[in-house]
Amino acid sequence: MLVWGASLFEHVVAISREENAPLSSQIYQQYREAILARRIPEGERLPSSRQLAIGLSVSRNTVNTAYDLLRSEGLVDVRSGARPEVVALPVVERSSLKEENIEGVVPLSSRGKRFATNHRYYCATGRGAHMQPGEPSKELFPKEQWARSLRRAARMLSGNALGYEHASGLPELQRVLAQYLAQERGVICAPEQILVFPSVQSVLSLMSQCFSEEGDVALLEEPGYLGAKSAFVSAGLDVQPLTESEQFQRASLIYVTPSHQYPTGKRMEMTERLALLKQASEKGAVILEDDYDSEFLFEGRPIAALQGLSAHSPVIYIGTSAKSLMPGIRLAYIVVPKAHVFDLAMAQRTSGALANVHVQLAFADFIESGHFRAHLNKIRSAYHENGSALCKLIGERFGNQIGVSMPTGGLQMPLYLPEYCDDVEIADYMNAQGYGVNPLSGFYLGEPVKGLIVGFAEADERRRLGFVTALIEAMNCAGQAV
Amino acid sequence: MLVWGASLFEHVVAISREENAPLSSQIYQQYREAILARRIPEGERLPSSRQLAIGLSVSRNTVNTAYDLLRSEGLVDVRSGARPEVVALPVVERSSLKEENIEGVVPLSSRGKRFATNHRYYCATGRGAHMQPGEPSKELFPKEQWARSLRRAARMLSGNALGYEHASGLPELQRVLAQYLAQERGVICAPEQILVFPSVQSVLSLMSQCFSEEGDVALLEEPGYLGAKSAFVSAGLDVQPLTESEQFQRASLIYVTPSHQYPTGKRMEMTERLALLKQASEKGAVILEDDYDSEFLFEGRPIAALQGLSAHSPVIYIGTSAKSLMPGIRLAYIVVPKAHVFDLAMAQRTSGALANVHVQLAFADFIESGHFRAHLNKIRSAYHENGSALCKLIGERFGNQIGVSMPTGGLQMPLYLPEYCDDVEIADYMNAQGYGVNPLSGFYLGEPVKGLIVGFAEADERRRLGFVTALIEAMNCAGQAV
Repeated sequence: MLVWGASLFEHVVAISREENAPLSSQIYQQYREAILARRIPEGERLPSSRQLAIGLSVSRNTVNTAYDLLRSEGLVDVRSGARPEVVALPVVERSSLKEENIEGVVPLSSRGKRFATNHRYYCATGRGAHMQPGEPSKELFPKEQWARSLRRAARMLSGNALGYEHASGLPELQRVLAQYLAQERGVICAPEQILVFPSVQSVLSLMSQCFSEEGDVALLEEPGYLGAKSAFVSAGLDVQPLTESEQFQRASLIYVTPSHQYPTGKRMEMTERLALLKQASEKGAVILEDDYDSEFLFEGRPIAALQGLSAHSPVIYIGTSAKSLMPGIRLAYIVVPKAHVFDLAMAQRTSGALANVHVQLAFADFIESGHFRAHLNKIRSAYHENGSALCKLIGERFGNQIGVSMPTGGLQMPLYLPEYCDDVEIADYMNAQGYGVNPLSGFYLGEPVKGLIVGFAEADERRRLGFVTALIEAMNCAGQAV
Repeated sequence: MLVWGASLFEHVVAISREENAPLSSQIYQQYREAILARRIPEGERLPSSRQLAIGLSVSRNTVNTAYDLLRSEGLVDVRSGARPEVVALPVVERSSLKEENIEGVVPLSSRGKRFATNHRYYCATGRGAHMQPGEPSKELFPKEQWARSLRRAARMLSGNALGYEHASGLPELQRVLAQYLAQERGVICAPEQILVFPSVQSVLSLMSQCFSEEGDVALLEEPGYLGAKSAFVSAGLDVQPLTESEQFQRASLIYVTPSHQYPTGKRMEMTERLALLKQASEKGAVILEDDYDSEFLFEGRPIAALQGLSAHSPVIYIGTSAKSLMPGIRLAYIVVPKAHVFDLAMAQRTSGALANVHVQLAFADFIESGHFRAHLNKIRSAYHENGSALCKLIGERFGNQIGVSMPTGGLQMPLYLPEYCDDVEIADYMNAQGYGVNPLSGFYLGEPVKGLIVGFAEADERRRLGFVTALIEAMNCAGQAV
């Protein structure tokens, strides 16, 4: 590396033409640092721009640009003709700036700590683990089609749609979704009742704030989705199992997955649905209906959404593209009661949980062009095949040692383990083998049931066999430990 | 519209081949509704699939699909061979479901109301108003280039990057941003210290929760950015002006825009910067440095960020593409202290404020390919020209009746009005003429100053002249009113 150095007035400025940063910026940075560190004290003068330009073999313009920056930042004073003079800076006692260690950094507040506390299960091996619950197939994602839709969207969108105007959702997407949800999910709504978010999690987080006070009760299915638990705990709520009906008295929020319960895969029957609506309505609680993967139930069409059971029900319907497309798309949507549209849209703006506009238009295009339904058909049959084959294989290898039933849809299913098994230990073992399964017991608020939640979206024959082999080992280890 | 009707057992099912919904879905929907509304009572039987298929001129498969859905939903019982029988449903007292009016709907909680309360100024005419502060030029947005970058990103990204893995930001973007911020903004950070969000507002909202308790003081510049005020008020904070130094004692958050103050356009001098760092460090307060539009200051390069003044400073640096590209892109980023990376990334997951992955990769590509800097140069000179010309024109037409100075950068500038003017009234008048200016007085916590905040990104000659003509009228009206 070629370096020109100019040793003037006891400090050195070194520049390199091989660095990315402009020469003026290199000069500025070094003087700036030297002045702030008091290596060049107050009152001292920098070289004249002519002197420095000669010393560094650069143009005077380059030096002047650097000096202008130092001046505009208030580090030097330049009177016409004179050399720049370092100004008096307030004495900052560096010792008062705390050291960069855990103790020194401003700690998170108590509510910040609730946000930062992990209530979900993250598999030990992290990146690249197979058969994680909730993970759709990356291989089946229609990348090329999506790329084309995105480009078309980006070429079409202009004007106010790119600005702050449609913060809660592009009208095109609201229109297409209203039609889609009416047809496919029995959801009753006008387009403007649909608000578009970047994720289901951002919906749960904001709705917790909007419909509860700290210390209120939120009801969760037993076992239930840990993302909802995270959101509720972060909002300072007391999370209780939905099974304990006496808790209804104090509940302000009820989270349910009626179409395909997470993680058991069960369906909420009509009698239960009506009873739930009745209770929620009587107690003034809001139902959050998370319809995360009803698009690909394997038997017939999914049951129509809870939301459509009563036009006056206190239900907020939640849908997402995280399972039907990919999580990285970051597009979820909710249907809210008409009377809440304005307030919740305003609350959404305050929260800043907004979705990219090009992705919104691409999704609308994807649905309208039929690509979306075609993709759903493709993944539905692939997931059905993988899930059924895995279920069959486990039945063959484990007999009644493991409880398993044909999955009715979605991306994951529970395996019920014998009571003597430590499912966390078995999950850890499986994680270490590269299988991102979750222990079922962690999904209970009360008395836990032992099991594993297993994703099967990408579970082809090779992976299924590998999985079963690893599970046999894990169960043997667990059996010996007893 | 052709309608086949079948009147069987006292109720009518009507289907249409011209509707979008599949025939089976039409049959299912109508029976479902009739059963839930008790028009077909418990114990009654639906027609046999053969009967209904003949009556409606559809295949038996179509009817069976509808019946399967009714059965799987728990609305009818089907014993083999027999006609479907409507099951007993729990009596839901419809009167207990509250009517859809403001009183009946579950009200927002008190903290929900804080979120839904509008602290910002929305111009009365809404959509399509010109010269709104903070709005970049839609005309100059490089739509075609962005569309290509997006498509390239969507074709390149695959595997785990599309999943839940990189919730806080794609490594590619973190790497490019770390380099860009070091070069352009003097920000000192490793790539992993950068967290990517969908908006500055989502950052302010989450950081308020993470670093404060309810009732704490948050300090805001005077006048200051109303988006920050919204976030702080929503988090239950007591918002006080930064000018009142005795408030420092209780402050847990300090929001500043040192490079280009919003809305005055001033720059924070070095002495002020060092004093602020010192005070924040002593009191254990976190500084939120919003560097929203420093990419296009008109004179030389912007002053390096506050964040880089001390490696140990309690500063969270905030940047965004909302001004340099477009708000609808929904991409902002923060630089956090190393010790906070894990906790804040976890908190971000809980909040669900995540950015689309394709947009992230497209932005990284845009910066690396040089398109971004080229775009910045283009808008910098256009905004400089528009802003300077507007300033000059106002000086000519209004003399010293309106205080105005050459904008040093960005997208908007303040016009200072005579004390006798009601700036809200004048803003309303201008809004009605299609100019989305904001009254300056609304940006003060204490004693307000009268003025207008005017966006000039798209203020070409025709708009400037129209604006000045409208402003003369508005001022005359205001003058007469006195």
